[in-house]
Amino acid sequence: MTASLVQWDHLFADRARRITSSTIRELLKLTQKPDIISFAGGLPAPELFPVQEVAAATQKVLNEQGAQALQYSTTEGHAPLRQWIAAQHGNVDADNILLVSGSQQGLDLLGKILINPGDLIGVETPTYLGALQAFSPYEPEYVSIPTDEEGINTEALEELLKQKKLKFIYAIPNFQNPTGRTMSLERRKKLVEITGRYGVLLLEDDPYGKLRFRGDFPPSLFSLGLEYAGGDESQNHVIYMSTFSKTLTPGLRVAWVTANPTINRKLVQAKQGADLHTATLNQMIVFELVHEVLGRQTELVRKVYGERRQFMMEALGKYLPAEVSHTDPEGGMFLWLTLPEHMKSTELLKQAVDYKVAFVPGLPFFALGGGENTLRLSYSCANADQIDRGIGALGEVISKNL
Amino acid sequence: MTASLVQWDHLFADRARRITSSTIRELLKLTQKPDIISFAGGLPAPELFPVQEVAAATQKVLNEQGAQALQYSTTEGHAPLRQWIAAQHGNVDADNILLVSGSQQGLDLLGKILINPGDLIGVETPTYLGALQAFSPYEPEYVSIPTDEEGINTEALEELLKQKKLKFIYAIPNFQNPTGRTMSLERRKKLVEITGRYGVLLLEDDPYGKLRFRGDFPPSLFSLGLEYAGGDESQNHVIYMSTFSKTLTPGLRVAWVTANPTINRKLVQAKQGADLHTATLNQMIVFELVHEVLGRQTELVRKVYGERRQFMMEALGKYLPAEVSHTDPEGGMFLWLTLPEHMKSTELLKQAVDYKVAFVPGLPFFALGGGENTLRLSYSCANADQIDRGIGALGEVISKNL
Repeated sequence: MTASLVQWDHLFADRARRITSSTIRELLKLTQKPDIISFAGGLPAPELFPVQEVAAATQKVLNEQGAQALQYSTTEGHAPLRQWIAAQHGNVDADNILLVSGSQQGLDLLGKILINPGDLIGVETPTYLGALQAFSPYEPEYVSIPTDEEGINTEALEELLKQKKLKFIYAIPNFQNPTGRTMSLERRKKLVEITGRYGVLLLEDDPYGKLRFRGDFPPSLFSLGLEYAGGDESQNHVIYMSTFSKTLTPGLRVAWVTANPTINRKLVQAKQGADLHTATLNQMIVFELVHEVLGRQTELVRKVYGERRQFMMEALGKYLPAEVSHTDPEGGMFLWLTLPEHMKSTELLKQAVDYKVAFVPGLPFFALGGGENTLRLSYSCANADQIDRGIGALGEVISKNL
Repeated sequence: MTASLVQWDHLFADRARRITSSTIRELLKLTQKPDIISFAGGLPAPELFPVQEVAAATQKVLNEQGAQALQYSTTEGHAPLRQWIAAQHGNVDADNILLVSGSQQGLDLLGKILINPGDLIGVETPTYLGALQAFSPYEPEYVSIPTDEEGINTEALEELLKQKKLKFIYAIPNFQNPTGRTMSLERRKKLVEITGRYGVLLLEDDPYGKLRFRGDFPPSLFSLGLEYAGGDESQNHVIYMSTFSKTLTPGLRVAWVTANPTINRKLVQAKQGADLHTATLNQMIVFELVHEVLGRQTELVRKVYGERRQFMMEALGKYLPAEVSHTDPEGGMFLWLTLPEHMKSTELLKQAVDYKVAFVPGLPFFALGGGENTLRLSYSCANADQIDRGIGALGEVISKNL
């Protein structure tokens, strides 16, 4: 029997101080009531999931390759799926593709192999909260790169790179989480050129790219990086990540990282120590779905989210006071509101619960703080009626605070 | 276009130097030929996998809760499965159980929240190679704890703890990988008492515990730790890990960690940054299987591996020269050979390939080197005939080197 109460906190590694639960997440628990219309979650619409197709694919895989699907497999991932992804990229070598357990794992592994404590990591202002959670345990210092409607401000970035040596820059060029903004072609080219010239790795996270409602698909930073490297994959300084979570379904946890061979090899070794490999069955299910279901499903999601975005844009026009501005996303799941300077969205959320509406305050998306007067809305999971009522309620609570 | 060839290695974090591919793994690639009888793999027997039961469970889950099974879910894991595991432990709080993507992820997360560079981590001599791969990126120094037929030598451990402050000790008390040894009840009690008294966490990895062929099931270190803490879960210094990989199937990647609330909470936060959550569908499939299939399946695996162990013990008696000694496992998948001092098992493996037989040399299981004259045999995936022929060939190549 122990004599006195043992505390365990002193045994934690220093990096564990950077591993915390966000206060916003705690706040959002208050909004998880059935009568609240929530635009807070970043979830895909579950009513669109291809449930029967997943069921059929699972039966096929288990009937035809059951023992293989349930056995341990290679860390690199299911070879046919890697080859399919390579073909999607154009002429990329399938050896440079690593299947991971959701994009979140890709972010963690990249943080693990790249970040030394104190390393400078450039992120968009604002940026994806989950990326900060993945990188922070490796104890980087964040550099918040100015952005505008066209994405990263490349002139400001170049000034910054003249003074500071960044290890890598993390960017979401398409329908960014949280803002919904898309990086222009000109900015993409400049970003790839500047980072290449300064020897800074560029990490492109592209979970939403296929969910475009209007306009052309611009080239990925990865493909521009390959061009910059004269077509030599081993020289591409852009690392690309995407996922099947937003097109097919997130519950299978299958995503991938495409990187030059040196980085790919180290990622494979890191993944071996982190979880051996992504679930074999899940990778084989996804491979069954990429040929027909994925295309159909992507079309469906694009159509439905496009309609929901339209409903939300109309409701915002109808109910929000003129003092509030918002982005106009060409795809994806998110829309970003900027309130008058004096308004704090964290305070607003507490009031909004009484108005039966919820959103995510902007603050946690800013690596170095700021953005107290911003908030993120997701339209992926709400129907026309919910959007109309929810945005109506949001308009009321904002107006009350003007 | 870049002017000169860019090297990427200089961008890696310092910890990445500790993330490497083992030379043994490379060597073992040579043995992956269809005509070689391999006792090298640590794989469960695929012909025993409950393929049809997994198929039926998947259909049930997708029919009844399809949208939930394919959606994002909580980091902690599927609540009904956590409750089932809690009940298996006795009266442990389900809140203290975290579902992980294979035990390997449990090892990685524990390393992440606990290990500062330079921290001393105690491991058995020899120990599980995968644990070293999980911990090493966090840059610990290993302390190799003497073991014998009864597991960790607790007297030697206490002498060691008088001089060195360890952060935690990692142990596999049942049918250890790689030796197949089981820790005696007396040693278990002493190990829990000593580590408790010196404030050293004890990490119990128990993937094989249910696969016992003979003798009684001794109490887990975790249950002894709870006793030592006077039944107060918050005071238990033993962290327990197990998995469904060795009983049901490894391809689903579902395992768990049971720890005191302080450590559990930090693990949950670390997992959120590492992969958000384990695949929802997979956890729900496993929950469907735990009620009937798991018990039946465990019996089947136990029976078949027990027979294969018996075949191997007989073949070792028949073919191996008297100069070679080996362990006598009461369960699990592995058996450990000690060759005469002058014999190097790494060299022996190169020759063994010509004799159409493979094993894993002992060296990589020793955190601080040594054990060059040892090797691991797995009997889980070989039938009677393969075992007889394979061990016959092994006997030949060893005798040739005497």
